[in-house]
Amino acid sequence: MKQSTFLSPTLRDVPSDAEVKSHQLMLRAGLIRQSAAGVYSFLPLGLKVLKKVENIIREEMDLSGAQELLMPAIQPAELWQESGRWDLYGPELMRVHDRHNREFALGPTHEEVITSLIRDDINSYKRLPMTLYQIQSKFRDERRPRFGILRSREFLMKDAYSFDRDYEGLNESYRKMYEAYSSVFTRCGLDFRAVVADSGAMGGKDTHEFMVLSEIGEDTIAYSNESSFAANVEIAPVQPDYEKSNEAPLALEKTETPGQKTIEDVAAFLHKDAKKLIKSMLFHADGEPVLVLVRGDHEVNDIKIKHVLDARMVELAGENESASLLGSVTGFIGPVGVPDHITVLADHAVRSIVNGVCGANEKDYHLVNVNPDRDFSVKSYEDLRLIQEGDPSPDGKGTIEFKQGIEVGHVFKLGTRYSESMKASYLDENGKAQPIVMGSYGIGVSRTVAAIVEQHHDDNGIIWPAAVAPFDVHLIPVNLKQDDQKEVAEELYAELRRSFDVLYDDRAERPGVKFKDSDLYGIPVRITVGKRAGEGIVEVKPRNREEKMEVHKDELADTLKQLLNV
Amino acid sequence: MKQSTFLSPTLRDVPSDAEVKSHQLMLRAGLIRQSAAGVYSFLPLGLKVLKKVENIIREEMDLSGAQELLMPAIQPAELWQESGRWDLYGPELMRVHDRHNREFALGPTHEEVITSLIRDDINSYKRLPMTLYQIQSKFRDERRPRFGILRSREFLMKDAYSFDRDYEGLNESYRKMYEAYSSVFTRCGLDFRAVVADSGAMGGKDTHEFMVLSEIGEDTIAYSNESSFAANVEIAPVQPDYEKSNEAPLALEKTETPGQKTIEDVAAFLHKDAKKLIKSMLFHADGEPVLVLVRGDHEVNDIKIKHVLDARMVELAGENESASLLGSVTGFIGPVGVPDHITVLADHAVRSIVNGVCGANEKDYHLVNVNPDRDFSVKSYEDLRLIQEGDPSPDGKGTIEFKQGIEVGHVFKLGTRYSESMKASYLDENGKAQPIVMGSYGIGVSRTVAAIVEQHHDDNGIIWPAAVAPFDVHLIPVNLKQDDQKEVAEELYAELRRSFDVLYDDRAERPGVKFKDSDLYGIPVRITVGKRAGEGIVEVKPRNREEKMEVHKDELADTLKQLLNV
Repeated sequence: MKQSTFLSPTLRDVPSDAEVKSHQLMLRAGLIRQSAAGVYSFLPLGLKVLKKVENIIREEMDLSGAQELLMPAIQPAELWQESGRWDLYGPELMRVHDRHNREFALGPTHEEVITSLIRDDINSYKRLPMTLYQIQSKFRDERRPRFGILRSREFLMKDAYSFDRDYEGLNESYRKMYEAYSSVFTRCGLDFRAVVADSGAMGGKDTHEFMVLSEIGEDTIAYSNESSFAANVEIAPVQPDYEKSNEAPLALEKTETPGQKTIEDVAAFLHKDAKKLIKSMLFHADGEPVLVLVRGDHEVNDIKIKHVLDARMVELAGENESASLLGSVTGFIGPVGVPDHITVLADHAVRSIVNGVCGANEKDYHLVNVNPDRDFSVKSYEDLRLIQEGDPSPDGKGTIEFKQGIEVGHVFKLGTRYSESMKASYLDENGKAQPIVMGSYGIGVSRTVAAIVEQHHDDNGIIWPAAVAPFDVHLIPVNLKQDDQKEVAEELYAELRRSFDVLYDDRAERPGVKFKDSDLYGIPVRITVGKRAGEGIVEVKPRNREEKMEVHKDELADTLKQLLNV
Repeated sequence: MKQSTFLSPTLRDVPSDAEVKSHQLMLRAGLIRQSAAGVYSFLPLGLKVLKKVENIIREEMDLSGAQELLMPAIQPAELWQESGRWDLYGPELMRVHDRHNREFALGPTHEEVITSLIRDDINSYKRLPMTLYQIQSKFRDERRPRFGILRSREFLMKDAYSFDRDYEGLNESYRKMYEAYSSVFTRCGLDFRAVVADSGAMGGKDTHEFMVLSEIGEDTIAYSNESSFAANVEIAPVQPDYEKSNEAPLALEKTETPGQKTIEDVAAFLHKDAKKLIKSMLFHADGEPVLVLVRGDHEVNDIKIKHVLDARMVELAGENESASLLGSVTGFIGPVGVPDHITVLADHAVRSIVNGVCGANEKDYHLVNVNPDRDFSVKSYEDLRLIQEGDPSPDGKGTIEFKQGIEVGHVFKLGTRYSESMKASYLDENGKAQPIVMGSYGIGVSRTVAAIVEQHHDDNGIIWPAAVAPFDVHLIPVNLKQDDQKEVAEELYAELRRSFDVLYDDRAERPGVKFKDSDLYGIPVRITVGKRAGEGIVEVKPRNREEKMEVHKDELADTLKQLLNV
């Protein structure tokens, strides 16, 4: 491709609204352009990378035995009403009316459409198992689109759905996808972890997220420094065992703590370690009040509350509710003397507190020398807190550390969530109807491209892994007015194109401009045709190394094959 | 691919709502499934064909020097307001609000988005010419979606846009696209014509439609039986020369024609040839009244009126307006005595009428022996009528015949329609800003698939041209319970897969079912493993021929290469 007429405009300045490196570099290197908040065009250079990632995904999907199909973006509201998600999904679901005022969703995902396809066309155990996938633009009206194509409102996604006779089959389909995903992200040159995650609004059971490690990631991964344990902090289980001190229980006392509302304030005011404090928070779980207790140095995990209570919706109660139910406000509430109709749940760590501190359910007062099961009772002790760095790993091996991650893939065991609500069944060997057992699997294709840039760049630009690079070789004559340089450059362009994808900088620009653009683009190998062109010698520089080599043009093809590993 | 777990469900019955063959066969062969009116999924077999067509298009686009990019489906309303199309486009444009109540269009085409991209990133003559294309789902809320994917509301389209310094450049870019389109449709095995067409709502000048000949086509092509002339009847010019009879002009008379309102009625009532009658129709062109005259046996072409008057909107006047402006109603209006403020335009054919008949502008009366330029005057004689079968070809060679066509492609010279309204300019050698001269080019990718089926089928199913077939070979063992058949079939499946794309019918179905499905699918070559399997002999049948051949399995690869032309 000749660069003079290739649409690959570079920007020297960092666009002011681009906060993260991948966003900055993708704009500066002319890979993407914004049309509206969270809505982007892929320019030719960006699309070439997107297609490479797409093809890696397609190859791995096909290898796993999945079949590609293509469903529409426009989805009838009726299907979403059948599954119950039309009302549940909220403002992220973009809704559109046709000229007859019929309602449609712009597909953010395709569980409904695929389940309706399958229920019509699959009816025998003989056709199962089956996994179907598509690669397609998806729409989600993000509350806060940002970071360029990392969190956008229209994005390319690979979504797959597996259909099995039973959970054993699902486990196998899930395993295949998990492995295919691992291959995809490995081939894309990403440093990633598959972590246990929460199934969220999708419904379903087991689920893993594929996280690309990056400090700008919006998710936090808790992993063991000594084992393969890794989970999203949202869901990571915490070891239930805590050491209890031998201290003798003292008599309960009430003490004035004027204006001391936070754990830090109270601990400092009373000269106590935060570990002695009992943090009490009032929630509503499906409308019922629940008082949740964790240790002062811990944080409540509301996803865990939801799971423990099997509740659909858990939210923090307001100040007014605290006052009316417990007689006080946040900062001074506590478990002692709580009315019977309020469920009290405590984290395992609370059980080990001796002579602790909690709110007195009276403004500006706390209780000291509080002892669980003596001064208050608890419905049950559960795992209710967020895991923390330094915690023992839940698998008993090593200590927990945190890293930030960008979610690029997600595998779910849906089970019969959709096949039951939408009546997708098959007839087994005995002619009996059984619900199809489903899995759902997604890869953010455009987000993966951004994640690659986050992990592969330096101060000068992108450093593409060869497998996803837009071109293999960037061929740069220093000065096209020099006949020998021009001749060698044209000759190399003609020859190398037969085996490699070559971007040829045939522009009448200064060498400095050409090299700056080249570093920005990040094509794996740069070939500079300069002063020694007359001798047939050119300079070869891999983008990911500092050193340059002088190579005779006759040996160039071999050098390139080595560098590009082909 | 093993058929037992391949999602390719066939239907024995013709779906009741499928009117045309391609729709029926694509449903029956399991290529597509409907989600809503005009909204379809492509099942794996259909997607394979779609991808083949897409790849042919991509190859031809790349060969022509066009660069692929990908723009978003969601387009900000502001861009459409800039171009002026937000209000013009009508209900076909699907509009959507985001959570902040900002308005967006779901892209039916991308002139606005690409023009805004280009104005930001292209500013020098050095970067021109350039042609960009994308292959993407488009959205048009058709008033009457029908014929399956021939006229649907979400469909795959290839759209391309060229950018040039001047019209000479545009002509060259247009020529390249025209040639690329011809190659695409030829490679897809289509019998098509490139016809001159109307530029319609797109704005712009020269334009050709690529029409696949088919009796179900919604467009009518006027073509010469002796030359390469072909045009959409909407636009086809008519030869302006008509023979005038030598008859002596007679005196104008008024005659009673009670209730005789149509041309046929009046001609019969007065015993006149319809060619003697002058058909008079009152239009509003951008609000101004225009009386248009054509010969009784001709039809007015309002697109031509629009062009002659350079009007934005031309519509037939209502009965009340005829009455108030001309003193009578449709059926009895005519050009004699028309007030000066009404423009009178006549088709060339009217000039040759001698002693004609026209409405008397009085209910139930006509005038006879009317002679143009004696009894009424005309602002100008123009080409104002629809071409008809039997007319001489406008290029002077041969006679016009009609055929129906399906529009699969369209090339437009837009000129500066968008670059002027949206301010996309470049600096020329002298540093002077000039508007970029644009072209716009589209191919209906999914529609092309349907058009292929319309032209390639028989009573039993589809007959895919090899270049777009979902598989090369359909391998069918008659009875898998026979060990020798099973053994040969499995061996052939393993071997042939190395060079061909093979669908292997490994289902435990009766041979009749397998052959019926096979004919429906229309894979170019069927290999039947039957009774002579033990001798290593199988039956080969090309889908497009009646004869079967017995071939030894060792010679099979050669036979296939010959049949598939690879």
